[in-house]
Amino acid sequence: MATLGDIGVAAGINLLSAFVFFLAFAILRLQPFNDRVYFPKWYLKGLRSSPSRSGAFVRKFVNLDFRSYLRFLNWMPEALKMPEPELIEHAGLDSAVYLRIYLIGLKIFVPIAFLAWAVLVPVNYTNKTLELQLKNVTSSNIDKLSISNIPVRSDRLWTHIVMAYAFTFWTFYVLLKEYETVAAMRLQFLASEKRRPDQFTVLVRNVPPDPDESVSESVEHFFLVNHPDTYLTHQVVCNANKLAKLVKKRKSKQNWLDYYQLKYSRNSAKRPFMKTGFLGLRGEKVDAIDHHISEIEKLSKEIAEERERVKKDPRCIMPAAFVSFKSRWGAAVCAQTQQSRNPTLWLTEWASEPRDVFWQNLAIPYVSLAVRRLIMAVAFFFLTFFFMIPIASVQALASIEGLEKAAPFLRPLIEIKFIKSVIQGFLPGIVLKLFLIFLPTILMIMSKFEGFTSISSLERRSATRYYLFNLVNVFLGSVIAGSALEQLNTFIKQSANEIPKTIGVAVPMRATFFITYIMVDGWAGIAAEILMLKPLIIYHLKNFLLVKTEKDREEAMDPGSLGFNTGEPRIQLYFLLGMVYATITPVLLPFIIVFFGLAYVVFRHQIINVYNQEYESAAAFWPDVHGRIIIALLISQIALIGLLSTMHAAQSTPFLIALAVLTIWFHRFCKARYEPAFVRYPLQEAMMKDTLERAREPNLNLKPYLHNAYVHPVFKEEDDDDTDDDFMFKSENESVLVPTKRQSRRNTPVPSRISGASSPSLPEAVPEHSEP
Amino acid sequence: MATLGDIGVAAGINLLSAFVFFLAFAILRLQPFNDRVYFPKWYLKGLRSSPSRSGAFVRKFVNLDFRSYLRFLNWMPEALKMPEPELIEHAGLDSAVYLRIYLIGLKIFVPIAFLAWAVLVPVNYTNKTLELQLKNVTSSNIDKLSISNIPVRSDRLWTHIVMAYAFTFWTFYVLLKEYETVAAMRLQFLASEKRRPDQFTVLVRNVPPDPDESVSESVEHFFLVNHPDTYLTHQVVCNANKLAKLVKKRKSKQNWLDYYQLKYSRNSAKRPFMKTGFLGLRGEKVDAIDHHISEIEKLSKEIAEERERVKKDPRCIMPAAFVSFKSRWGAAVCAQTQQSRNPTLWLTEWASEPRDVFWQNLAIPYVSLAVRRLIMAVAFFFLTFFFMIPIASVQALASIEGLEKAAPFLRPLIEIKFIKSVIQGFLPGIVLKLFLIFLPTILMIMSKFEGFTSISSLERRSATRYYLFNLVNVFLGSVIAGSALEQLNTFIKQSANEIPKTIGVAVPMRATFFITYIMVDGWAGIAAEILMLKPLIIYHLKNFLLVKTEKDREEAMDPGSLGFNTGEPRIQLYFLLGMVYATITPVLLPFIIVFFGLAYVVFRHQIINVYNQEYESAAAFWPDVHGRIIIALLISQIALIGLLSTMHAAQSTPFLIALAVLTIWFHRFCKARYEPAFVRYPLQEAMMKDTLERAREPNLNLKPYLHNAYVHPVFKEEDDDDTDDDFMFKSENESVLVPTKRQSRRNTPVPSRISGASSPSLPEAVPEHSEP
Repeated sequence: MATLGDIGVAAGINLLSAFVFFLAFAILRLQPFNDRVYFPKWYLKGLRSSPSRSGAFVRKFVNLDFRSYLRFLNWMPEALKMPEPELIEHAGLDSAVYLRIYLIGLKIFVPIAFLAWAVLVPVNYTNKTLELQLKNVTSSNIDKLSISNIPVRSDRLWTHIVMAYAFTFWTFYVLLKEYETVAAMRLQFLASEKRRPDQFTVLVRNVPPDPDESVSESVEHFFLVNHPDTYLTHQVVCNANKLAKLVKKRKSKQNWLDYYQLKYSRNSAKRPFMKTGFLGLRGEKVDAIDHHISEIEKLSKEIAEERERVKKDPRCIMPAAFVSFKSRWGAAVCAQTQQSRNPTLWLTEWASEPRDVFWQNLAIPYVSLAVRRLIMAVAFFFLTFFFMIPIASVQALASIEGLEKAAPFLRPLIEIKFIKSVIQGFLPGIVLKLFLIFLPTILMIMSKFEGFTSISSLERRSATRYYLFNLVNVFLGSVIAGSALEQLNTFIKQSANEIPKTIGVAVPMRATFFITYIMVDGWAGIAAEILMLKPLIIYHLKNFLLVKTEKDREEAMDPGSLGFNTGEPRIQLYFLLGMVYATITPVLLPFIIVFFGLAYVVFRHQIINVYNQEYESAAAFWPDVHGRIIIALLISQIALIGLLSTMHAAQSTPFLIALAVLTIWFHRFCKARYEPAFVRYPLQEAMMKDTLERAREPNLNLKPYLHNAYVHPVFKEEDDDDTDDDFMFKSENESVLVPTKRQSRRNTPVPSRISGASSPSLPEAVPEHSEP
Repeated sequence: MATLGDIGVAAGINLLSAFVFFLAFAILRLQPFNDRVYFPKWYLKGLRSSPSRSGAFVRKFVNLDFRSYLRFLNWMPEALKMPEPELIEHAGLDSAVYLRIYLIGLKIFVPIAFLAWAVLVPVNYTNKTLELQLKNVTSSNIDKLSISNIPVRSDRLWTHIVMAYAFTFWTFYVLLKEYETVAAMRLQFLASEKRRPDQFTVLVRNVPPDPDESVSESVEHFFLVNHPDTYLTHQVVCNANKLAKLVKKRKSKQNWLDYYQLKYSRNSAKRPFMKTGFLGLRGEKVDAIDHHISEIEKLSKEIAEERERVKKDPRCIMPAAFVSFKSRWGAAVCAQTQQSRNPTLWLTEWASEPRDVFWQNLAIPYVSLAVRRLIMAVAFFFLTFFFMIPIASVQALASIEGLEKAAPFLRPLIEIKFIKSVIQGFLPGIVLKLFLIFLPTILMIMSKFEGFTSISSLERRSATRYYLFNLVNVFLGSVIAGSALEQLNTFIKQSANEIPKTIGVAVPMRATFFITYIMVDGWAGIAAEILMLKPLIIYHLKNFLLVKTEKDREEAMDPGSLGFNTGEPRIQLYFLLGMVYATITPVLLPFIIVFFGLAYVVFRHQIINVYNQEYESAAAFWPDVHGRIIIALLISQIALIGLLSTMHAAQSTPFLIALAVLTIWFHRFCKARYEPAFVRYPLQEAMMKDTLERAREPNLNLKPYLHNAYVHPVFKEEDDDDTDDDFMFKSENESVLVPTKRQSRRNTPVPSRISGASSPSLPEAVPEHSEP
């Protein structure tokens, strides 16, 4: 057991490393040549342009203004300055609400920590159990502050039960308020927003095949009959996966062509050559530029053919369509009602934003969906509990003997002492680490296979799975110290009242481990996030190799996004630790609070300056966040039940069971009270918005506006390139069809007060309207 | 352990008693004076009138036609004769679908029984385990046919696993087909039906209070704004509970008055007197007729006052309303969508039929509902697991010592030897029996407290609870032999893989007990049902004491109803037994089949001739029935897992777990696929019906039709009595507003073929139109 001193030293080290990261960040971000790495969001919004147009040559790359270095931490207050409404306007509701998760952490744990330190710590500390028990062992100060220091059968344990109630009710209060706020923000956001195509559109799936009619006719007839007053138009979904692949291939060839052309232009003496075979290593040697030009031409032709085929071939028309209505009311009605006798046909749901649609999955029929869900549930179970088996076998292969057996020709290499020790020491760990790095991707693929139709729902599903995996393999794995499979075995063989005991007894013993974990993963890890090492390196590589024009530079930026599917489960682990240790080892709470505070500032900065959210789901993830905090509460109560029953305070069990029942009830209450706001769209709101709009724009014609809103992005891209004067494109420009680049903002003459102020040390970064 | 011979004897006795019941029924039903007890449904439908109008005096009471006695069992084929569509027409969809539950039992278990007897019985019988084990004990033949006869670690156990798969898949198939059929029947029924007010009406609850508007105005404005094209009218719900109580009181007084007047008219010499005090035993002696007349007058005045008060006092207006729409489409839209931002305000759901509405619960606010649900969940948990505690204490009180202590003045009485032995022998049993008799009532009160708004949902909820109670206290209680509390203790202290073993080991040992149970409760109990002893006695008592007019006689009938809340859980117990024992002790299956066959015939007869269903929910209970059969399947799989693991066939466990996972998945699939048909109303259907109606009756004015459809029955009764020429009443007559008496049928000149044929031995029972 570590003493308070040890922990203090570890905290110092981690704080120092966090400080080093911040310092490095502060210096790097002030350099103009890193500007696009640390402020890409402003570039994407068109509020900032490359700093290369004014000033001396050196100042293009290095910031020589020394005053700016003195204030190297002032990005922190700046990140906090932007008020929430402006943040929503700037980065979308998803990001703003995501930040509230950290705020909730602070709201929950700051009062709990005060209460715990004021009440529980003195109550725990004024006992002498551990001193008596462990006379010969160096007594740990941390354990003296925890519940372990209380003698068995002591009446002091009632304090902990009362505190468990207090903490639970406080958490209820915060959660309830927050759910209310977020639900209101969501409705406010949906209502106050400008006209968006998804407000009028419903995704219809499983259109039944009709021998006499095409899918398009069938859809039109059905909705003309069943929604005669509100139906407006529809857009059939095409299976353009092959086309999308071709377009992607052409784009990559185009990149290579650019690269070779740049190379040639820099050194025009030597015409670049390449090999056509595998990875450019084998095969015939050809002129790279000519080769790519001819390849691109060939692909363009193929794409044109495929485009025609997709448009004409009825087999490419999928039995799904985006149906648009004359009013929000009509769409709200259609999305919430059942259309046909057979509830698996004519399935309607709100259409996601056009950029949120996951096109590949739109055509999966109902029965297949049910089977896929079963398969994935079973697969996830095995992934969670049995993932160590393949890992272990790969690790065995990655050992010295395994390698020698598998690849005898490597033998002389392996026998070198240094390499041998590297293999023995690192390889097994690396195999596991690689698996853990790829886990979110694996989970994402699983979600895709399950057939969700929007990227946001894919991410939500992956987040749920990732959370469960973490819960079993990180939390329980650390507490009970064993692989998930061993735990499963333990749990199955233990009786229902033994399981809480097993957890409860182990929890206080692992407090120091988790404190270290929080410091390394939470403090230093979050601080490292802001440095953006990977995008920084990649940007400069690209910049050096590929970039010719301003547009290339724009494409070289990799702002990334929040990554809900990995980020949120990670936060939830801290909620879980905080809840579980609040009553048992309150010493842990300050570490959690520091994490939430630090993470809040860092992510607020990143959201304002870096991340470019790919879609907007209007905080649809909140019910998940809420539900997982409830799970954390329940686990903390179970652990406390187990711990107290081993301390012979069994008469307290009914009180804690009542608390758990109350928690479940609270969850159900919140679910019924607030969740509909995240699933359905109230008619009253829709009607209000419709009426307002009709009053303001009595002659509005929605049909051209909605006509091409839900075209597969492949077609849209083509249209953009080829037919700029097209009717569709014009209407798109007018009405912010795909608001990725916030064209409305470009026309406002003066930028936001905060956005201008967020980089005051860079006078050349004052927003310019780079594009007309 | 009973031998096959013992079981045979028991079966003989029970069959004989069933036969006696049938014989008694056959004789009693042929007597004309019992006609209203055994054929009340035909009287209620107006297709049969009292047999007293024609023929000799004796023939009014006793059937002297001896030929009719010879065919004393021919009610059975008659009951089976009526085809299902006519049965639906005659008794409603609820009853017709209820009968299908018995049919499902036959469909599932007849093939399973054949397969089990063809495969499992020979496999079990050709072992010698039991003979070797129990050389000194008389070996039971039944056990030789069960899985117990198979030696441990035998490969023959694989037969049982394969059979478990076969049985499960067969059950899946039957369940799927049946769900599909019932869903289609329901939609067909809803679509083919005549116009009913609930098709156009939505129940709106939690209307938010508005300081400037009354509830009625608020509702009207809200729906005029948010459903401008379809809103028609609404009916605010009044709190008329007090008024209903007064009306009920007046009716009882009226009954007494009738009784005394009848008494006086028979013996006009002696004017009847009564005492006004407690139960007519104490207090002043008054002239009974005068007293009642004055009482009734007083009450009538009070009722009139209360009626005025309810109509005017705004505090009596509850924040709920029945909102009617111009079309079924409009109602379907409103019922399925969320109306306001706050999902707990303006809650809309389909209105139940007017006679299905449970008026008292319409005003319960949302938060209160959530709290009530929590309280009832906890209460039900304690009721299930701790009900023996109060029973035991009452039993202790009901013992000799308890009684002597509680009521010393009874001492001399108790000391009499005969009374003492009665108290000792019967009282504790009677206390338990009384509790079990009152249990459905208790559960019903609990459901009412929970705040359901229709009688059908109350019954469904009670049925669920009754099923769980039976499952824990009858099935598990018999298998594990202990009170529920002891079981709970066992289960908590056992590990997750011990619980199936505990059940699995005990199950084969209890086979003979359950066979006896099936014969007593299933065979003889069902046969006793048809005799209708209680209604028979009560009818004749009433007939003797009260009946003056034809109308009185009609009111003296007590046809009863199906009683879904007690009947269905009882059937489910047989499904559970059949499923569990199908693989373990297939000998039990024929007994189950006899039960289902017998019950099907008996209940079909009762539904055709006796029961008068109070409401029509269009088979809304089917998802519950389906779900419980799935639970039975799961329990059978768990028991088999446990049993096989004790027989050291542990390698089979994964196969059975896979089967259980598959079962759960099947349930989820069915739920998603068919349950919407029982909850929602597809727009396509609504639109089709609307269009048809508009084409047929282009000038239809729905407003008068719907205007008073959802008036509290107290007001309606008054209206019927007082204002016969009222506009409302006229429109009601035209359009079968409350189709309790099927007025449409009265106008058809020729009765149904079957309904005429169902009582051929009573020539005077040929339908007459008793009322003009």
